[in-house]
Amino acid sequence: MRVAVLGIGSVGRGVLRMLAEKPELGLVLTAVSDSSSASIDPSGLDPRDVLDRKNLTGRCGEPGLGAGDVLASDVYDVLVELTPTDARTGEPALTHLRTALARGHHVVTSNKGPIAADLAGLEALAAERGVAIRYEATVGGAIPVIHAIRDGLAGNRLGEITGVLNGTCNYILTRMDDEGLTYEQALAEARELGYAEADPSYDVLGIDAAIKLVILANTCWGLSTTLDDVAITGIDGLTADALRLAASQDCTIRLIGEASPTRGLKVAPRVIPRSHPLVIEGTLNAVMLSADMAGEITLMGKGAGSVETASAVIGDLIAIRERGSSGG
Amino acid sequence: MRVAVLGIGSVGRGVLRMLAEKPELGLVLTAVSDSSSASIDPSGLDPRDVLDRKNLTGRCGEPGLGAGDVLASDVYDVLVELTPTDARTGEPALTHLRTALARGHHVVTSNKGPIAADLAGLEALAAERGVAIRYEATVGGAIPVIHAIRDGLAGNRLGEITGVLNGTCNYILTRMDDEGLTYEQALAEARELGYAEADPSYDVLGIDAAIKLVILANTCWGLSTTLDDVAITGIDGLTADALRLAASQDCTIRLIGEASPTRGLKVAPRVIPRSHPLVIEGTLNAVMLSADMAGEITLMGKGAGSVETASAVIGDLIAIRERGSSGG
Repeated sequence: MRVAVLGIGSVGRGVLRMLAEKPELGLVLTAVSDSSSASIDPSGLDPRDVLDRKNLTGRCGEPGLGAGDVLASDVYDVLVELTPTDARTGEPALTHLRTALARGHHVVTSNKGPIAADLAGLEALAAERGVAIRYEATVGGAIPVIHAIRDGLAGNRLGEITGVLNGTCNYILTRMDDEGLTYEQALAEARELGYAEADPSYDVLGIDAAIKLVILANTCWGLSTTLDDVAITGIDGLTADALRLAASQDCTIRLIGEASPTRGLKVAPRVIPRSHPLVIEGTLNAVMLSADMAGEITLMGKGAGSVETASAVIGDLIAIRERGSSGG
Repeated sequence: MRVAVLGIGSVGRGVLRMLAEKPELGLVLTAVSDSSSASIDPSGLDPRDVLDRKNLTGRCGEPGLGAGDVLASDVYDVLVELTPTDARTGEPALTHLRTALARGHHVVTSNKGPIAADLAGLEALAAERGVAIRYEATVGGAIPVIHAIRDGLAGNRLGEITGVLNGTCNYILTRMDDEGLTYEQALAEARELGYAEADPSYDVLGIDAAIKLVILANTCWGLSTTLDDVAITGIDGLTADALRLAASQDCTIRLIGEASPTRGLKVAPRVIPRSHPLVIEGTLNAVMLSADMAGEITLMGKGAGSVETASAVIGDLIAIRERGSSGG
């Protein structure tokens, strides 16, 4: 199966590494682009060469070429969209995905922006063209939660989703709880370790968790909610005192996303008992799905990371190879 | 899609109830048998009528008919094998599955015996006939762990499986830990609540957990291990003192199954830190999969129950309807 990759950031590098290390998967890279160049070869590119070139020159291919050239080349069965996300508009990824689908190609993405902005529209376009859209990597990193919703729990009606959807916040809260650090101290530590960005607002204000919650809710219930529909409280106002008070009652505080088809979407710090399945440590993520037949199913694992997120992308690519546009 | 059901115990009742309650799934019951009767109607049976008849008369259909008649009727696309399991030989379920596959029908089962006894042989037969064999319900009840291994983590190499695979043992250990009960007291309580059989040896000696571990290992690595390959220690020798000692070190004891392609298969009580993801409460089950790309993924949920296990059976039926024999 021929694969085109847009974007060579952390996830893109992970995907290219895995394509290089796992030739047995039968995934052939035929086109790739970054923000300033592209490389296209219908007979196949060596992902190692692409990574070496990127590391050496800062470009993956020929200057002057770009995502548009990759899209128009049509030398791919699946477009893998991994460009930086824009939480509000989803652009330019949304246009990339629409273009590939309209040209009759399957798409796989780790890009939360376009999926949160217009999942229903993208799925309608995919159905119209008889191709698949898959986005396991947008939520929970390596955790196969979209697979669980669409396949593993097929036939179930889901009543509620709750989850720890942002590893940065979970790390900060874990450290405040374990060591009695202030929010500022824990954030500084997270920055040092590379768990928080220089501008951490996207994570600590709860926006990242809210986008993922939107994607889960729209996947579960076929809704078209957006970021504006989520009631969001971040963790930036949390004091060490609040954590201590929770600890005195054998509880702790975690940033929890909650969604239900009747009660709407909410992201906020919550006091929960220490024995609760969503009390996980460090940068882990967890999602709890409440299903009418299966009961409560919890999935947890690494919510971010280059190769971990690539795992979700690769899983989607294999699903498309094995099932095409069918199979949920 | 036409479905034939063999066996109307707890799981069979759950499946029939769900077929009745969820007509939108498009699963039509055309044949059913219990140990002393069968009912066959190519135009479709009402699952409610079957359950009512079973409750009223102890039989689901006409005396004198049986599983053999259902199998030979060929009025089904998928055979659902839910008869009582025989841990060692897998019979008569193994013959039922082989017969249905040989006749060109898909099969779905919750029956651990035949899957632990001869998964490789059954899969070879299914492949030869171009049909599917699915067995999500054999391990972890409602938890979609086989789906996660085959689909969600597709492309990953799995290095190790660890899990809490028996809810009866986990309940007993939870109660010994929480309340300082002796093994005998906790077992008596589990019996009263219906969590343990009159003869609990299959559960408390670790055999049930070992069979599930065999199924997981053979699924992950294409092995043909059997129950004889598992080093098994049950929980029947555990003292309240051992639990207290563990508690004094902020640990507890759980019956853990562990498998790796290099270090073999083992079921034994293990002292583990309280914060470990496998420390779950009551009758829950959990499985931790260690994957080369995804890292450690943990799934937890209800490991037993009529409707919960039916959820796994229904998920398999939908997968077959959507994908046929393809898709892993």
